[in-house]
Amino acid sequence: MYNLLKGKKGIIFGALDSKSIAWKVAERAHEEGAKFVLTNAPVAMRLGSITELAEKTGSEIIPADATSIMDLEDLVDGAMKILGGKIDFVLHSIGMSVNVRRGNHYTLQDYNFTKTGFDVSALSFHRVMSVLYKKDAMNEWGSIVALSYMAAQRVFPDYNDMADNKAYLESVARSFGYFFGRDKKVRVNTISQSPTPTTAGSGVKGFDGFIAYAEKMSPLGNATALECADYTISLFSDLTKKVTLQNLFHDGGFSNMGVSTAIMEGFMNSYEPTKEDVIEESKKSDKK
Amino acid sequence: MYNLLKGKKGIIFGALDSKSIAWKVAERAHEEGAKFVLTNAPVAMRLGSITELAEKTGSEIIPADATSIMDLEDLVDGAMKILGGKIDFVLHSIGMSVNVRRGNHYTLQDYNFTKTGFDVSALSFHRVMSVLYKKDAMNEWGSIVALSYMAAQRVFPDYNDMADNKAYLESVARSFGYFFGRDKKVRVNTISQSPTPTTAGSGVKGFDGFIAYAEKMSPLGNATALECADYTISLFSDLTKKVTLQNLFHDGGFSNMGVSTAIMEGFMNSYEPTKEDVIEESKKSDKK
Amino acid sequence: MYNLLKGKKGIIFGALDSKSIAWKVAERAHEEGAKFVLTNAPVAMRLGSITELAEKTGSEIIPADATSIMDLEDLVDGAMKILGGKIDFVLHSIGMSVNVRRGNHYTLQDYNFTKTGFDVSALSFHRVMSVLYKKDAMNEWGSIVALSYMAAQRVFPDYNDMADNKAYLESVARSFGYFFGRDKKVRVNTISQSPTPTTAGSGVKGFDGFIAYAEKMSPLGNATALECADYTISLFSDLTKKVTLQNLFHDGGFSNMGVSTAIMEGFMNSYEPTKEDVIEESKKSDKK
Amino acid sequence: MYNLLKGKKGIIFGALDSKSIAWKVAERAHEEGAKFVLTNAPVAMRLGSITELAEKTGSEIIPADATSIMDLEDLVDGAMKILGGKIDFVLHSIGMSVNVRRGNHYTLQDYNFTKTGFDVSALSFHRVMSVLYKKDAMNEWGSIVALSYMAAQRVFPDYNDMADNKAYLESVARSFGYFFGRDKKVRVNTISQSPTPTTAGSGVKGFDGFIAYAEKMSPLGNATALECADYTISLFSDLTKKVTLQNLFHDGGFSNMGVSTAIMEGFMNSYEPTKEDVIEESKKSDKK
Repeated sequence: MYNLLKGKKGIIFGALDSKSIAWKVAERAHEEGAKFVLTNAPVAMRLGSITELAEKTGSEIIPADATSIMDLEDLVDGAMKILGGKIDFVLHSIGMSVNVRRGNHYTLQDYNFTKTGFDVSALSFHRVMSVLYKKDAMNEWGSIVALSYMAAQRVFPDYNDMADNKAYLESVARSFGYFFGRDKKVRVNTISQSPTPTTAGSGVKGFDGFIAYAEKMSPLGNATALECADYTISLFSDLTKKVTLQNLFHDGGFSNMGVSTAIMEGFMNSYEPTKEDVIEESKKSDKK
Repeated sequence: MYNLLKGKKGIIFGALDSKSIAWKVAERAHEEGAKFVLTNAPVAMRLGSITELAEKTGSEIIPADATSIMDLEDLVDGAMKILGGKIDFVLHSIGMSVNVRRGNHYTLQDYNFTKTGFDVSALSFHRVMSVLYKKDAMNEWGSIVALSYMAAQRVFPDYNDMADNKAYLESVARSFGYFFGRDKKVRVNTISQSPTPTTAGSGVKGFDGFIAYAEKMSPLGNATALECADYTISLFSDLTKKVTLQNLFHDGGFSNMGVSTAIMEGFMNSYEPTKEDVIEESKKSDKK
Repeated sequence: MYNLLKGKKGIIFGALDSKSIAWKVAERAHEEGAKFVLTNAPVAMRLGSITELAEKTGSEIIPADATSIMDLEDLVDGAMKILGGKIDFVLHSIGMSVNVRRGNHYTLQDYNFTKTGFDVSALSFHRVMSVLYKKDAMNEWGSIVALSYMAAQRVFPDYNDMADNKAYLESVARSFGYFFGRDKKVRVNTISQSPTPTTAGSGVKGFDGFIAYAEKMSPLGNATALECADYTISLFSDLTKKVTLQNLFHDGGFSNMGVSTAIMEGFMNSYEPTKEDVIEESKKSDKK
Repeated sequence: MYNLLKGKKGIIFGALDSKSIAWKVAERAHEEGAKFVLTNAPVAMRLGSITELAEKTGSEIIPADATSIMDLEDLVDGAMKILGGKIDFVLHSIGMSVNVRRGNHYTLQDYNFTKTGFDVSALSFHRVMSVLYKKDAMNEWGSIVALSYMAAQRVFPDYNDMADNKAYLESVARSFGYFFGRDKKVRVNTISQSPTPTTAGSGVKGFDGFIAYAEKMSPLGNATALECADYTISLFSDLTKKVTLQNLFHDGGFSNMGVSTAIMEGFMNSYEPTKEDVIEESKKSDKK
C-alpha cells in the first residue's frame, strides 16, 4: 500500500493459518514490498496451511524448530541465500504452554511441561537472536519484533505459565536488544497485543468471554490481528529506527485502564451487596 | 504496640474526622510512641472534629492553609518549637477537586477550578517540602509520605482531574525526593491506597460501587484506612530507611491485576453477546 | 515519501524554527501528503520563523495562545474552514518553564512561575483536546500526539518543574484519551523523546553535556528531531489505529537502560575510591 | 528490637555466610521474636557457615535442593513439625547463573547452563510456593518474599541471564501471588535490592565498580544487606498485610533516577567531545 518495506528482507516465524497474526504480517509485508522467508516448527506446518501463504506472497518456507540452534542456523543461512543478502526484519510469533493444553492449574504445574513451554515460548527468542547476532546476519537499522501479552505485567488467572514466559521474553528483548543495538544498530521490541481470536489463543480457558471483557474495557476496543500486522509493519519500517528495548502495547488502550464505564455499569447491574459483604464491611470498620 | 516511632516527631496533615486515613495514622503514630502536631486547613477544621483527635493523642493543632507559604512556615516553626526539635516524619493527606464537587465532567472542566484543585492537591506537596527543606527542619533519615491513588497511572473515569493531580504529586515526590535525599538524607514516597470510604472520597461519583468492584478485583480485598495507617507507620519507622522516590501500592494487589476470576465470573453472568456484537465481530474479520 | 497521510488534515502546534521537532513534523507530514494548519503563541511567532515553514509546506498559520480557550476555539474553527473538514491529527509540542528561564532551583520555585509553566506546558494539552472534543472536530480514527520527556518518570535534576509538568501532561493523555477513544474513536498518545538540541531545549542547564551522556547511555544513540518526526508520522498514520493512552519512548533505548558499558567504562576511568569512600564502606559493614 | 515478629514462624532460604542478605534477615527475625527453619542447598551448606547462624538464632537447618519437589515437601513438613504449626513468613533468596560463573557472554549462552540457572533462580520460587500452597502450610496473612534485582526491568550488561531469570521470578510472584492471596490470604512480593557485596553477588563481572556507580546514582546511597533485612522484616510484619503482587525497590532511590548530579559531574569531567563525535553530530543534522 505504501511501499514501506520496499527492498527489505525478512524472516517471519509462526504463521499457522489465516487467523495467525504472523500470517497477516506476511500478507501486509508482501503488500508493502518486502521479500521474506516463512518458517514454522515442522509439527505446526503439518497442522496449518503455510504453503498457501507462501504461494500467495511468493515466499519460500524453511521449517525450523525454534528450540534447535542447528535448525535456526540452517534457517538463517538459507534465508540469506534465498533473499540474496542480510535480513532487515524478523517476527517472532511463537508461544505454547503444555500446562494450558493439558489443563494443569497454574499452581499445580508439571514442571517438565513448564520447561518445555519456556523453551519454546521464551528461550526460543534468545536463540533466534543469538544465531542472527553470531552470523552477523542483520542489516544495520534492522528490526526484530516478538509478540507478547500484558499478562507479563498483570495477572490474568487463566493465562497460566504463559504469563511468566512472556515476562522472560520481554526481558530477553531488553537484554539482547542492548547488545544488538550497540553492536549492530538493530532494534528489538515486543508488541503486547490485545487478546486475539487465533487458533493458538483459543486454547486458553474462557477465551471468548475474556475477549468480550477486553473489548468493553478498551476505549478503542480490541486490536485485531490485521491491525497488529499494520502496527508491526510500522515497527519494521524506517519510521521507527530509534525505538528499541520497548514493550509496546497495541490493545485499544486496555493496558492503561483502571476500569471503563462500560465494565463498571455491567458490574453495578449484576452487583447486589450480599449479607456476607455487609458483615465483612462492618467487621473491617470494627477491626482493631 | 511496637514502639516503632519512639522519640520521633512528626507533622500530620489532613485528619478531618475519624474516617480519615490521616486520623488513623495519628492514632497509630501515637500508639507507636511518636509526638506530632496536627494540621489542617482552617475550613476543614471547622467541618471536622480534629480537636477530639488532638486530645486523644496529646497533640497540638496548628491550622495551616497548604496553599500558603506563610502558613506553612508558621506551621513548621511552631511544630519544631512544640516538639522540641527537628521533624522525623510528615504525612501529606490533602486532596480536593472543585470540578468533582461541582459535577463538571472531566472533558468540560472549569479551568479555574482545575487550578485551585491543582494548587491544593498537588502543588501543596511541593510547598510543604520546600519549607521543610529551606528551614532544614527534617532530621536525617526522616520520612515524608503523601497519599496518592492509582488513577495517576490508569484511567478511572470518575476520578476526574484528581487523576492528573495525583500524577503531578507523585512526580513531585520523585523530583523533590532526589534533593531531599541527596542533601538531607530524607526519604520521600507516596502510598497509592485502595479506594477508601472516607468523607473526602465519598464525593466521587459512584464511589460505593467502585469500592465493591475494587474489593472483587483485589486478591486480598481492599486495604482499609487502618491498614493504610499501619503501612504508613512502617514507612516512618527505621525499617525502611533506603526506600525513596517510590510510589508504593497498598491495595490488596489491585494494581497488578488484569482481571480476577470474581470479576470475570460476574462479567460472564451478565454478558450476552448481542446481535450488534456478532455483526461487529464479523465485520472485523472481513475488513480489508 | 510513502503517502502515509494522503488526504489527512492536521493542526501542528509549536514549530518555532527549523530545529523544532514540530517543524520537522510539518515538513514530513507535508511530504506524506497531509494538509495542515500551523499554530504557535503570538510571542513565539515573533521569535521564530514559522512563515518560512508555512510557505514551504503550503500551510496557513493561525496564531493561538494555548492558555486561551477563545484562541483555541478560533484556531479549531479556522483550521476546519481552511482544511475543508474535520481534523485527523494534532501535534502538541508546547513546553516552557519560567523557573528554568529565571534560574530558580527546583527546591526554591517561584510558585507564580510554576503555575504559568503548568498552564502553558501541561494544562494547555487538556484545553486543546477539550475544544476539539466539544466541537466534535476530530475525524474517527484521528490521532493526537503530545511530546513529553522521561523526566516524567525518572529524576533528571536540571529538568526542574518541567518534569512535573510532563507527568501531568502524560496523565492528561490517558485521562482525556479514554473519553476521546470511547466517544470519538480518536487515539491520544505522548512521545517521550530523547533530549534534542532544539532552541527550547537549550534553555536547560548543562544541556549539551546531558545530550552527550544520553548518547552514550542509549544503545542506538539519541533520536534526532527528524527521527522523532518520522515516528510521529507513524502515529498519525493508519498503521497505529489501536495504539492509545500510551507514553511511547523514542530514545534509542535509554529508558530501559540501567547502565551501558560505555557509561560504566567512563565511570571506572574517572573513579578512584577516595579515603572517604573506604571509611564510609567500612562504617556500613560495621553498622548496628 | 520491636517484637514485630513475636510468635511468627518462618522458613529462610539462602543464608550462605554472614554477608548474605538471608543471614541478616535471620538475625533480625530472631531479634524480632520469630522462630524459623534455615534451609539451603546441600552444596551451598558445605561452602558456607550456616550452622553458626543456626546456633546463634536457635534454629534448625533442613537442607533442601530448591529444584527438587521432594526436598521441598520434606522441608515444609519438617518446618511445620519443628515450629509446631503453619508458617507465617518465607524468604526466597536463591539465585545462580552458570553462564556468569563460566564467563559466557549474554549473547553466547550455553543453553544447558541457562536452563539450570533458570531452574535454580526462577522456577524454584514457583516450586516453593506450590508446595506451601498444596500443603496448605501458610497461615492466613502470611508473607512470602523473594529477592530480586532491577535488571529485571532495565539493562545492566554484566548481569547476564540473571536479568531474565529475575523477570521470570517477579512474574511468578504476581501470578502465584494472585492465587495465594485469593485462596489463602497470603501476600507475595519481591524486593528489588541495591547491588550488595555478598559472596554470591561478587561473581558478577566488574561488581565493585558497579556498586560505586550505584552509590553515586542513588540519592540515599546503596541499601546495605542489613537495611534489606530491616525492610524484609517490615514486609513479614502485620504492618503490611495488604501489600501484595508488588516488586518493591529497596535501593536508595536508584530505580527512579535518570541521572544524578554526582554521576553527571563525573561524566563531564571525563568527557571531551572527540572529533568523531563532532562529525557524527554534523552528519545527523544533515541526514535526509
